[in-house]
Amino acid sequence: RIALPVFASDALSSVAYAPDEIFLTLSLAGIAGYAFSWPIAVAVAVVMLVVVLSYRQTVHAYPSGGGDYEVATVNLGRRPGLVVASALLVDYILTVAVSVSSGVQNAKAIFPQLVGHEGIWAAALILLLMTLNLRGVRESGTFFAIPTYGFMVAVIGMTLFGAFRILGLGEELHAPTADYTIVGDPFYGSLTSIAVVVLLARAFSSGCAALTGVEAISNGVPAFKEPKSRNAATTLGLLGAVAISMLGGIIWLANVTGTKVIDESSGVVLTRGEEVVRHTDTIMGQLAATVFDGFYPGFLFVVATTMIILFLAANTAFNGFPVLGSILARDGYLPKSLHTRGDRLAYSNGIILLAVAASTLVLVFNASVTALIQLYVVGVFVSFTLSQLGMLRHWTRHLRTEVDPAARAHMVRSRAINAVGLTCTGTVLVIVLAAKFIYGAYLTVVAMALLFALMWAIQRHYAKVARETALDPSETRTLPSRVRAVILVNELNKPAMRAINFARASRANTMEAVVVAADPDAVEQLRDEWDELNPGITLTVIASPYRQVVAPFLAYVKGLRSGNPRDVVMVYLPELVVGHWWERLLHNQTGLLIKARLEFFPGVMVTAVPYQLASSQVALERAVRSDAAAWRRPGSGAVHVGAHLDD
Amino acid sequence: RIALPVFASDALSSVAYAPDEIFLTLSLAGIAGYAFSWPIAVAVAVVMLVVVLSYRQTVHAYPSGGGDYEVATVNLGRRPGLVVASALLVDYILTVAVSVSSGVQNAKAIFPQLVGHEGIWAAALILLLMTLNLRGVRESGTFFAIPTYGFMVAVIGMTLFGAFRILGLGEELHAPTADYTIVGDPFYGSLTSIAVVVLLARAFSSGCAALTGVEAISNGVPAFKEPKSRNAATTLGLLGAVAISMLGGIIWLANVTGTKVIDESSGVVLTRGEEVVRHTDTIMGQLAATVFDGFYPGFLFVVATTMIILFLAANTAFNGFPVLGSILARDGYLPKSLHTRGDRLAYSNGIILLAVAASTLVLVFNASVTALIQLYVVGVFVSFTLSQLGMLRHWTRHLRTEVDPAARAHMVRSRAINAVGLTCTGTVLVIVLAAKFIYGAYLTVVAMALLFALMWAIQRHYAKVARETALDPSETRTLPSRVRAVILVNELNKPAMRAINFARASRANTMEAVVVAADPDAVEQLRDEWDELNPGITLTVIASPYRQVVAPFLAYVKGLRSGNPRDVVMVYLPELVVGHWWERLLHNQTGLLIKARLEFFPGVMVTAVPYQLASSQVALERAVRSDAAAWRRPGSGAVHVGAHLDD
Ligand SMILES: [K+]
Ligand SMILES: [K+]
Ligand SMILES: [K+]
Ligand SMILES: [K+]
Ligand SMILES: [K+]
Ligand SMILES: [K+]
Repeated sequence: RIALPVFASDALSSVAYAPDEIFLTLSLAGIAGYAFSWPIAVAVAVVMLVVVLSYRQTVHAYPSGGGDYEVATVNLGRRPGLVVASALLVDYILTVAVSVSSGVQNAKAIFPQLVGHEGIWAAALILLLMTLNLRGVRESGTFFAIPTYGFMVAVIGMTLFGAFRILGLGEELHAPTADYTIVGDPFYGSLTSIAVVVLLARAFSSGCAALTGVEAISNGVPAFKEPKSRNAATTLGLLGAVAISMLGGIIWLANVTGTKVIDESSGVVLTRGEEVVRHTDTIMGQLAATVFDGFYPGFLFVVATTMIILFLAANTAFNGFPVLGSILARDGYLPKSLHTRGDRLAYSNGIILLAVAASTLVLVFNASVTALIQLYVVGVFVSFTLSQLGMLRHWTRHLRTEVDPAARAHMVRSRAINAVGLTCTGTVLVIVLAAKFIYGAYLTVVAMALLFALMWAIQRHYAKVARETALDPSETRTLPSRVRAVILVNELNKPAMRAINFARASRANTMEAVVVAADPDAVEQLRDEWDELNPGITLTVIASPYRQVVAPFLAYVKGLRSGNPRDVVMVYLPELVVGHWWERLLHNQTGLLIKARLEFFPGVMVTAVPYQLASSQVALERAVRSDAAAWRRPGSGAVHVGAHLDD
Repeated sequence: RIALPVFASDALSSVAYAPDEIFLTLSLAGIAGYAFSWPIAVAVAVVMLVVVLSYRQTVHAYPSGGGDYEVATVNLGRRPGLVVASALLVDYILTVAVSVSSGVQNAKAIFPQLVGHEGIWAAALILLLMTLNLRGVRESGTFFAIPTYGFMVAVIGMTLFGAFRILGLGEELHAPTADYTIVGDPFYGSLTSIAVVVLLARAFSSGCAALTGVEAISNGVPAFKEPKSRNAATTLGLLGAVAISMLGGIIWLANVTGTKVIDESSGVVLTRGEEVVRHTDTIMGQLAATVFDGFYPGFLFVVATTMIILFLAANTAFNGFPVLGSILARDGYLPKSLHTRGDRLAYSNGIILLAVAASTLVLVFNASVTALIQLYVVGVFVSFTLSQLGMLRHWTRHLRTEVDPAARAHMVRSRAINAVGLTCTGTVLVIVLAAKFIYGAYLTVVAMALLFALMWAIQRHYAKVARETALDPSETRTLPSRVRAVILVNELNKPAMRAINFARASRANTMEAVVVAADPDAVEQLRDEWDELNPGITLTVIASPYRQVVAPFLAYVKGLRSGNPRDVVMVYLPELVVGHWWERLLHNQTGLLIKARLEFFPGVMVTAVPYQLASSQVALERAVRSDAAAWRRPGSGAVHVGAHLDD
């Protein structure tokens, strides 16, 4: 058993929208443009083959799952690596936006009432994905397997059934749009050489959307069964074969049934006599209706599996985005707190960020796949190209030291494959950039540049802090001479008493309880209680003629320090632990302010001595529940405490 | 010298809008209604006299400045006291909204382009007041004196000059609206008994807006020079006399010059032939234009001083609101952190809250004084009435024990005055409630009820916590048996070294540095560095098979505790102190999460050991600046550190 389904949904789902993008771009030149659909499909299939073969090399050479980011960083350096990282972050966002948008576009074949509300429905689906992923729903292999195989069965079954009806039974199948005429764009319709070149470049670039998702597999090698690299490589090969077959089948069926698709915003329309049509169903929807003509369950199965695999593809981005974030955090390009994979906040933040970015896109572009595709393909091919360049360097470097002839022969072959891959993906990247730049790809370039600048700045900040905090081994390590403990009290109650007892247990050199006399009556009462109960420690009253608390206390602590700079002051703050956020507003606020101010005093430590109120039980249970949700996420689990390795 | 100006602005400024409210309500019955302006003015003057006389008793009996809240709480109990507090909080918000709105309405006589944008300009002025008060601008006595005396001079001067022209020179003065006809409301125009009763009730209730601000003086007794009570009482008397004179002067001038005012939203219009007028200037604006006819500086002086005193009146609320908040916080009705008068946050929060509430009101009601007056007067008279009831109880209680005949006679006289005050203000309260309830007073009642419920709930919460945390003197006070120190480290750098050194100085029973092995490579590197640099303390590595940090560390701490429940665990967290909010996102996040979780563990203390990065200097300077701004506020000042009273 190989792990095809889990990683295949992203790559396979692209077959759902790539043919549409090819055909609707060709529609610009009218029906004459459709003649180019086969050459373009073949070109896309060739690129796919080359990319798949290239990535098989990566999978063998980098089995750790770092993917393109690791390949580029190791072989090309930190800047190219960060370019790839920026491209991949944008790629994840667009995978969600495009997949969900395509799902909604396909859904319109079943629910025509969605027309005009695509953006809001796509955003709602993204919100649903976010919620599922925040709750840490665990997806089993089966969960992926059924719809992935279902989608393959649906598309290949539809192709075979269509072929049987056409070739076997000799039927003529007519798509719903078959007897319409395309009124294209006069520039492309002229079919001058320049028009044909631009048209082919644009249609091919859009068709390359079929390749998006292949890059995801190289990140997932560690999740395969042993032998991991081999299984991953096999999966990649299978995936390429299946994708090319599905793509070919769809293109053939669309051509033979006269299926036509147009993009509403391009100005192209379909006409039949007086009738003018500005909106068509997706190719998948039209083909399913044509091939299973009258057999509704067949139609429904094709459209439904298409929608589900697109939804799953979006979901894989929700898994991958936080993982990449965690890797980037490990390398200091994102806040380091995002690194620890199993902890909740890191994942939650990534999931929310991804959902916000993707929903913004689908709302802005009203879930138009055609508009979003202009942004999508660039990032993927930046990643492909730099990754292939990295692999080239990788083999060249290893060839320098390798002496075994068999291994060398293998490496030379691998290098040749990656060289072809680099040439191919680099060429496609140039074509895509040229063909799509003004149609939206510039937005991707800007987004990548901003992400790059942000992550570079974060890394610089961490490097600066690391230099500032680095230990100088020549420094003498003098221990503080004395510890002076100060317990800030307001009332003589259990929390104060706990703080006093804990402070006494830690045996400082001097120790005193301190109260600020902001309210003279209250302080008088406290002193009486103190005398009566005798908590075993001196009470110092700090005068506060202006009824302040924070400032006089800070001044007092400062005074303690100035006696001997090698003294350390330990400030104990009794703290009430409560259950609800609004209770927090009612307690500990002055303590928080004091703590925030004391941070600036070198040689002063602040110890919070928590006192758990009964109501804090609620918050504790909430915390356990929310942490547990994070722990249900795949890749994490129960907590194990290790041995004391140094004991 | 008596302190008239500072406290007078709120009360005197009411003269700017109360006459308008009387006249525009009477306009409902057409010009016939204006015949009632004198009786109503006299009634308002009588109520003012009674209230002023009553408050002179309060000022003598309660010189501490707690005002109506104190009087009601001491004499009637906590619930009536809290009702007064709710009424006063609403009163402050409406003082700001009404005063600023009236200022904008008066400004329209000079800047007609304000028409239609009153709400937004009023909100902008409130924002300006908020900013000034947040920055802690210190208002000197002179700052108040000039505009207050200026306003008195302007209004009394205008009255005298008008009287000189009319009575002395025998001129006939015609207001700009003099030769218009009022087209009133048919119901009131009918002048049936029921219509007259309702009209008089509504006009009188609105006229009672002239009394708003008197209550503020009883809160300000401590600010007077010695003998405080006597000076405050004299001020009150003077204030009443001045206010009644000004009110009488304006009413007389308005009647004699034929001034007419209408409220745009009431449907009443002015007509002259075909011409229909739906908007009039304020009475003050019309009178100034009429009396100083052609002498622009005179006109400008009257309108400008009116605007300024209204602005000052709003400003007094910005001083009073946080003070009342502080008193309520002292009594546990608001978060206790708001109590400490001199500290910055308490004041800032109060100022911002007041500004937000008042701007919302002016925006919703588009700075219509007439609409806001419907909300305003109720709260003031609730406070008046409960305060008088409290004073009645006060004298009755004291008479029970007093034996000196002279003192008793004095008390009996005072009690009689307060009894008259109670009857009078109680009656007015009933009239105001009846006349204004459906026009907006219900909103005030709802707001007061919500505030009451909120503050009552807060007080109950504090009482519950106090019971839960109260020391039980019979409990044995056992000290923790051992202190186990745990220093959480990630890297071996200066912050970690400082935490280790500080922990060592406090001599716990056991001590260890702990690292969670979320990143095996990083931990391996740390162990190598540890062996090399030898920081003098054991390093414990906690296994983390799922690359989490928080959960394994919590489990480890829990394990330490379970050995002996009387042990205390002291967790040291090295903490980087940075300068900018965005730097905070890059550091200490895991520490914060750990601290939030450890709070729930009894017997665990968390000590933050701050390490100040160079960039933290920026934040330190910002903190000092912002604290300093708070310290410039009147009533606070330099910090004094008291002697150790118990040493
Ligand atoms: K693909
Ligand atoms: K993708
Ligand atoms: K994809
Ligand atoms: K007044
Ligand atoms: K007032
Ligand atoms: K007031």
